[in-house]
Amino acid sequence: MNRFTLTSTEGNVRRGVLETPHARLETPFFMPIATKGAVKTLSSFDIERLGSPILLSNTYHLWLRPGLDVLKKFKGLHAFMDWDKALLTDSGGFQVFSLSGLRKLSEEGVEFQSHIDGAKLMLTPELCMEIQRTIGSDICMVLDVCTELPSTDESLHEALELTARWAKRSKEAFEKTKEGSVNPDAQLFGIIQGGTNIELRKKSAEQLLEIGFDGYAVGGLSVGEPFEEACKVLDALQETLPKDKPRYFMGGAQPHEIVAYVQRGIDMFDCVLPTRNARHGTIYRFVHEDLSKPDFFETIHVTNERFKESQEPIIQNADLNRELDQELSRYSMGYLRHLFTVNEVLGMRLATLVNLRFYLELMERIRTAIENDRL
Amino acid sequence: MNRFTLTSTEGNVRRGVLETPHARLETPFFMPIATKGAVKTLSSFDIERLGSPILLSNTYHLWLRPGLDVLKKFKGLHAFMDWDKALLTDSGGFQVFSLSGLRKLSEEGVEFQSHIDGAKLMLTPELCMEIQRTIGSDICMVLDVCTELPSTDESLHEALELTARWAKRSKEAFEKTKEGSVNPDAQLFGIIQGGTNIELRKKSAEQLLEIGFDGYAVGGLSVGEPFEEACKVLDALQETLPKDKPRYFMGGAQPHEIVAYVQRGIDMFDCVLPTRNARHGTIYRFVHEDLSKPDFFETIHVTNERFKESQEPIIQNADLNRELDQELSRYSMGYLRHLFTVNEVLGMRLATLVNLRFYLELMERIRTAIENDRL
Repeated sequence: MNRFTLTSTEGNVRRGVLETPHARLETPFFMPIATKGAVKTLSSFDIERLGSPILLSNTYHLWLRPGLDVLKKFKGLHAFMDWDKALLTDSGGFQVFSLSGLRKLSEEGVEFQSHIDGAKLMLTPELCMEIQRTIGSDICMVLDVCTELPSTDESLHEALELTARWAKRSKEAFEKTKEGSVNPDAQLFGIIQGGTNIELRKKSAEQLLEIGFDGYAVGGLSVGEPFEEACKVLDALQETLPKDKPRYFMGGAQPHEIVAYVQRGIDMFDCVLPTRNARHGTIYRFVHEDLSKPDFFETIHVTNERFKESQEPIIQNADLNRELDQELSRYSMGYLRHLFTVNEVLGMRLATLVNLRFYLELMERIRTAIENDRL
Repeated sequence: MNRFTLTSTEGNVRRGVLETPHARLETPFFMPIATKGAVKTLSSFDIERLGSPILLSNTYHLWLRPGLDVLKKFKGLHAFMDWDKALLTDSGGFQVFSLSGLRKLSEEGVEFQSHIDGAKLMLTPELCMEIQRTIGSDICMVLDVCTELPSTDESLHEALELTARWAKRSKEAFEKTKEGSVNPDAQLFGIIQGGTNIELRKKSAEQLLEIGFDGYAVGGLSVGEPFEEACKVLDALQETLPKDKPRYFMGGAQPHEIVAYVQRGIDMFDCVLPTRNARHGTIYRFVHEDLSKPDFFETIHVTNERFKESQEPIIQNADLNRELDQELSRYSMGYLRHLFTVNEVLGMRLATLVNLRFYLELMERIRTAIENDRL
């Protein structure tokens, strides 16, 4: 059964629909990040008002807290956070590598210390699947090996081979845990690694294709390499990746980068930038409608003196049929600036809503542009 | 014109209505605290959903930030924070005494250093009125002299005399600034000081009555003295205070204390406890209906292990016709505990909504109990 349908393609640009047990997702789409079971400052009620049909959460963090016992008791994260639309969980591979102390990689898995209490833990492909099945994700990710960049070709190659063997074990474990799980029709995505080495990227993709996944993610980018390098990797993967499977770019992307990656065939995005920037007082705004020009948006520092007396609303183009816009359009840039100046959490919350609304609107504009052959 | 109407009295207990330019307030009522122009973690939209017809904000804080120029530009705090119901502002006297460095009291006013940048500033009764007129409060408070406790009778006495002279100047300045102000029909309340010295309290009340105010606040309590002392002060003021003017207890009060103060003729309350406690993970719940017994409520520490797997909703008696209750009743104690455990701001926000909902419900129950002669 193929749960992904392309509704239009124009060169490498794709427009489609991804069916999941909890939502029908129009591609390309963007996933707000609810790392620990909440998008920072927002409730699931807020996400519904924003209109996102999917959230991304994190296997590593949820495994440590609240832990599997609590998630089992609640029959998964959907019920725990009261969210009835789609969930994707990343595998935790990246967090093990970036957050934990002393880690030891072996054939079996990765041994590491919890970043919370230093406890020694071991994450294996099998355990990673068990955790995601317990979370009840709609889209699960295989456990991959993240390599520090720069790396020698040899160590990249070794990491790739291990990633492939773990991907195979992940798939087997995923199938074994289907029956009796809270969300049996979940999908499993493979993660292509290989850094900026084109040959290794292709090899990684081929290894994963041989195992066969519901979708393919490009991992290990947005880790500091120039934007052009990421584009080259995506360009090189065009021939290798099958057209009929969704493609997910894992990692941060500014609005113009999202457009560039969509132009290179990407269907799915997640990114901490809108939410993290919001908490630091930076909001996104459209400047003009032409998405093909990278200056179609701007970022604004709300604490800037020029907003001190500004009565301009914090959102553009409010649709007063939407309750969210009714709320957000009430507040001025001057008030938002004040909230940040006096450290009121409400400022972070309003800016988070503003930025997620922007990213979701961006994806809507991208989808419309594709439909009108304008991308 | 008397804007306060008593609809029923039973002994010292009073039930009434206070008319203000922005709202008709059923007394006794409670005011959520929006110190710097926002109830911490909440927007004015949230307060509307909570159903409070009044907020309290702070003259001292708003004077420093955003400052009078911004407030003038916006034509007051109502527009600045987009709040169209009633506002009360405390005079800033307490903040000058508690937050600022080096202060120097003189006949003219109080000289002090800003707690933000150390700038030397001078607050006078006249300036205090100008600020509150610029804020556009519905209920303004005179500038009073707060004395550190314990104090000698002599210094208490001196502070009282100065408070009375400042109250007189406040009233004159308030009347002079009426015309052309953004909220000309605002009211002005006097503040009774005198510590726990009954004679001084009576004298302070008499001095203020002679000047004549729209309402009378009891200040300088809830500063560490035993609860019984506050009750004694209120008992002693029964004869002195006029029945036809609203009485406002300034300062923190736990739910059972609010009941006790209502039994001693208080009509208005503000209190940081529901919001501050919420941010520290403590929520309020009703235990039984009999408000005359001080154990009618309990406080709960949400991080307690016993809530780890609790699917109990975070609010009691949800009214699913209210949008707020629709949102809050979705979340469990287990989820709220998790949010606090992993330091998600959403936890503080949900707990704040829970506690303000509790305090507003408490006042509703108190008003109903008075109507039914049950208090």
